[in-house]
Amino acid sequence: MTYKLTYFNATALGEPIRFLLSYLDIDFEDYRFEVESWPTIKPTMPFGKAPILEVDGKVLNQSAAISRYLAKKAGLAGNDDWESMLIDIAVDNIHDLRQALAGYFYDQNEESKNQKYVPLFKETVPYYMDKFEEIVAENKGYFVNGKLTWADLFFVGVLGYLNHMAKIDLLEGRPHLQGLKDTIENIPQIKLYIEKRPTAMF
Amino acid sequence: MTYKLTYFNATALGEPIRFLLSYLDIDFEDYRFEVESWPTIKPTMPFGKAPILEVDGKVLNQSAAISRYLAKKAGLAGNDDWESMLIDIAVDNIHDLRQALAGYFYDQNEESKNQKYVPLFKETVPYYMDKFEEIVAENKGYFVNGKLTWADLFFVGVLGYLNHMAKIDLLEGRPHLQGLKDTIENIPQIKLYIEKRPTAMF
Repeated sequence: MTYKLTYFNATALGEPIRFLLSYLDIDFEDYRFEVESWPTIKPTMPFGKAPILEVDGKVLNQSAAISRYLAKKAGLAGNDDWESMLIDIAVDNIHDLRQALAGYFYDQNEESKNQKYVPLFKETVPYYMDKFEEIVAENKGYFVNGKLTWADLFFVGVLGYLNHMAKIDLLEGRPHLQGLKDTIENIPQIKLYIEKRPTAMF
Repeated sequence: MTYKLTYFNATALGEPIRFLLSYLDIDFEDYRFEVESWPTIKPTMPFGKAPILEVDGKVLNQSAAISRYLAKKAGLAGNDDWESMLIDIAVDNIHDLRQALAGYFYDQNEESKNQKYVPLFKETVPYYMDKFEEIVAENKGYFVNGKLTWADLFFVGVLGYLNHMAKIDLLEGRPHLQGLKDTIENIPQIKLYIEKRPTAMF
């Protein structure tokens, strides 16, 4: 089978997929385009968004759905339906934080953006990050049931993007999440991928 | 097992869960609160959001994760990992439209909200709805692989909420999506639930 990932030259929503493909030792084409090319590429994407993954030429969008599929192959999607759901919940909680940050970061109206700053950075961001820290502290260094799942790869995969949007180090003062980052980045296949990956915009 | 759903007296993100529980003939407590109670209830929610589902007292958040779990029980989550992924993709595409509408509908800055109106209703909304119509037309009246899956229940479940935010009938001129709505609402268990459900705010 052939795998081609198409995304910006960024970590963000492409990175959990790259992590999972690397974890699976799947050789994939890591096609990265620059922001300037996006207007040309966007109309060719299934719903006008990236990333997409092509599997034997079949075009798939939606990074979480793709990640879940790859995670099943990797044995990182839970041992039963209940555990799979707990992983899905963790991923969607992380997504909610991402969306709160994106709603601020990409806001094109200066006044509206300024209005969002205080509630986002005084309430929402510490609320989510403290919850995540607590969850990982209670689960032996992982998000779900004290073992590695794709929720962990997802979190560490999108973390650089979250930090970029927040303009702060979200892990500061949160040692369990820092520990999780170290754990993931030291998985041999992921470590190897990180060493080889191109310098990205974030 | 006992099931208790806690949500606003609204369809929206609670309705796919109610549809699935009804489809499964699961007797559940359909606890609905009024908007005025939200400030009191919000701090008791796992991530400050609703709906939650309590299964034997275990508190679960994230409506899509809960719906996927119930859909597996109902045999509506795909016959293999690939099909499950296609369903997840469809659900997340619908979520993206919901979020685009919500980003407009809940925008508290009048100027920002007005700026969003034209691109949202001249581009984004027709783009998504026409794609959905095309997909359902090509898939024998369903979202994925010509058969009933939870993507269909999800779409029809949140449709009233999408219409409410859009302030238009999104199905107008889209006969295949209208047909899908009729199909879902005529599934005996769902039909029965709809007949009994309380009058909701939307």
